[in-house]
Amino acid sequence: MTETTQAVLDAIVFNADGLVPAIAQQFDTGEVLMMAWMNAEAVTETLETGRVCYWSRSRGKLWRKGESSGQEQSLKDFRWDCDGDTLLLEVEQKGVACHTGRRNCFFNAVRDGEPAVIAEVEISPDDLYG
Amino acid sequence: MTETTQAVLDAIVFNADGLVPAIAQQFDTGEVLMMAWMNAEAVTETLETGRVCYWSRSRGKLWRKGESSGQEQSLKDFRWDCDGDTLLLEVEQKGVACHTGRRNCFFNAVRDGEPAVIAEVEISPDDLYG
Repeated sequence: MTETTQAVLDAIVFNADGLVPAIAQQFDTGEVLMMAWMNAEAVTETLETGRVCYWSRSRGKLWRKGESSGQEQSLKDFRWDCDGDTLLLEVEQKGVACHTGRRNCFFNAVRDGEPAVIAEVEISPDDLYG
Repeated sequence: MTETTQAVLDAIVFNADGLVPAIAQQFDTGEVLMMAWMNAEAVTETLETGRVCYWSRSRGKLWRKGESSGQEQSLKDFRWDCDGDTLLLEVEQKGVACHTGRRNCFFNAVRDGEPAVIAEVEISPDDLYG
């Protein structure tokens, strides 16, 4: 591990499960793509390879974003907040960020007083994971 | 509680502590301002008043953003993600979002191989909380 990585890890406040939430934002458009979790190993790999790697809580292992779908995220800037307990990743998203095939995961909102889907599927999940 | 609020609460997956992370994004510029937590009561108040209210984990009570500092957030759109376990709030931030007096909380990054502060203090915390 580099000294830079160690300094960043020292600044991050991981929760009781050893995790920290990471928001991914498309670096040039500002679109918020997704939120996922990282442990120290995922932070280290992300900083040292420049390819975003999360920790999958459901699978209990490192999740190299795009490893199944090809929809990788390249790291443009790695930021953390005033309390050190949330990360903001400026990324370049290849294709779509969401497993539903939508560009970002935040496609649910209220319209006309009811929950509604506000974004189109851009790539079929069958094509992403088939 | 309105039927709309109930439908949104039904769509949200709160964690074991009854909380869900909420990302606040400035609606017009795309700037990611902060991340905080909400419980069902905070979601309800936010939806029904249009003023963003979080749950303060440190103080163990509702946190009407800006109640001490005056730096309120008006809700422009309330979104949730594919899994229902993260919220994205499109807001209009009055003044600055961060308690340090910076516009947003994500002012730490790596520059020249070292952690660095990349945003200026816009309002003195003494003025915000004095």
